[in-house]
Amino acid sequence: MSQLSPATVARLPRYLRLLEENADTETVSSEFLARATRVTAANVRRDLAALGFQGTRGVGYSTAALAARIRRELGLDRRRKVGIIGAGNLGTALAGYTFLQKRGFEVAAIYDSDPRRIGTDTAGMRVRDVESMPEDVAAGVFDMAILAVPASAAQSVAEALVAAGIRSMLNFAPVRIEVPDHVAVRQVDLSHELQVLSYYG
Amino acid sequence: MSQLSPATVARLPRYLRLLEENADTETVSSEFLARATRVTAANVRRDLAALGFQGTRGVGYSTAALAARIRRELGLDRRRKVGIIGAGNLGTALAGYTFLQKRGFEVAAIYDSDPRRIGTDTAGMRVRDVESMPEDVAAGVFDMAILAVPASAAQSVAEALVAAGIRSMLNFAPVRIEVPDHVAVRQVDLSHELQVLSYYG
Repeated sequence: MSQLSPATVARLPRYLRLLEENADTETVSSEFLARATRVTAANVRRDLAALGFQGTRGVGYSTAALAARIRRELGLDRRRKVGIIGAGNLGTALAGYTFLQKRGFEVAAIYDSDPRRIGTDTAGMRVRDVESMPEDVAAGVFDMAILAVPASAAQSVAEALVAAGIRSMLNFAPVRIEVPDHVAVRQVDLSHELQVLSYYG
Repeated sequence: MSQLSPATVARLPRYLRLLEENADTETVSSEFLARATRVTAANVRRDLAALGFQGTRGVGYSTAALAARIRRELGLDRRRKVGIIGAGNLGTALAGYTFLQKRGFEVAAIYDSDPRRIGTDTAGMRVRDVESMPEDVAAGVFDMAILAVPASAAQSVAEALVAAGIRSMLNFAPVRIEVPDHVAVRQVDLSHELQVLSYYG
């Protein structure tokens, strides 16, 4: 894995989306990729050069080759298995998001700590006991986690995931969680989104 | 309302969060605000100058006055009323997020188009018929919308909201929606978040 800046990494999925949407085009230009990501074409060229990927002057980038390169860089050339922690309304909604499959993710398991939920079926899966999470991670059942737990539980669940060896998690709980440096967390912060929107009308 | 750049607007809620967390401190420095937002202190000063807010050299910014200024700028000095469209698992989960209240938002109504859901109770509210949305907006029931509908319904729901006069919406449906220029949309893009995370482990 190359060492890319967080800003570059955050743009790669957008380039990939665009390349996938234009899979029937042989080549794309940096200007074309720049439009969708609201950066300059020079920035696009720098991002892709950081991947060691060079376009051909006057021709552009090979759509298929660049898509494959970005997928490999993002670890999407193998299918990623996602574990959802929390089988309430949010976890159930996320488990049922079929479009994740199309983007290379498989929701492999869903967990809860509530005995009334454990063993029931939700979104076509049996809800597992959160206690079995560490052995499931060790067995390769999932390798990325989505936290759909109450704010009060988020930190302890994150710590259990880190202890089990998970290194990337998406947090829906409305609280900042603290993790070691080698673990990546992205936060879906609903109130931040609404506060930004509030400016506009 | 001043004309702020989108990047500045997106940072204001982060400054506000920090100011609220440090409400017992009389003043804060631009360096302090810069840390939480991963920009430079010079950038913070430019952002706040764009609000017409000046710090005092060697002292910093008044915590209370700056928080009030940002709240006013973001339209959070009045309580914002949010309508959730879609009373499935996701809509229900969002309607139950009590922390939104603390951030100045009131979930005022939830809507669905499914006759089996309309009139039932969810998260302490009666699910309304999506057909009544336009008259509810006209009556001031809500002024911001969250779309928690299937991808196939998102565009038509967005258009109905725009026609009703809504100018800001948060879209959870996994599809890009097209709106006129005067309408602000933010997209919670789960697969984008997971693809970024996938890079890290």
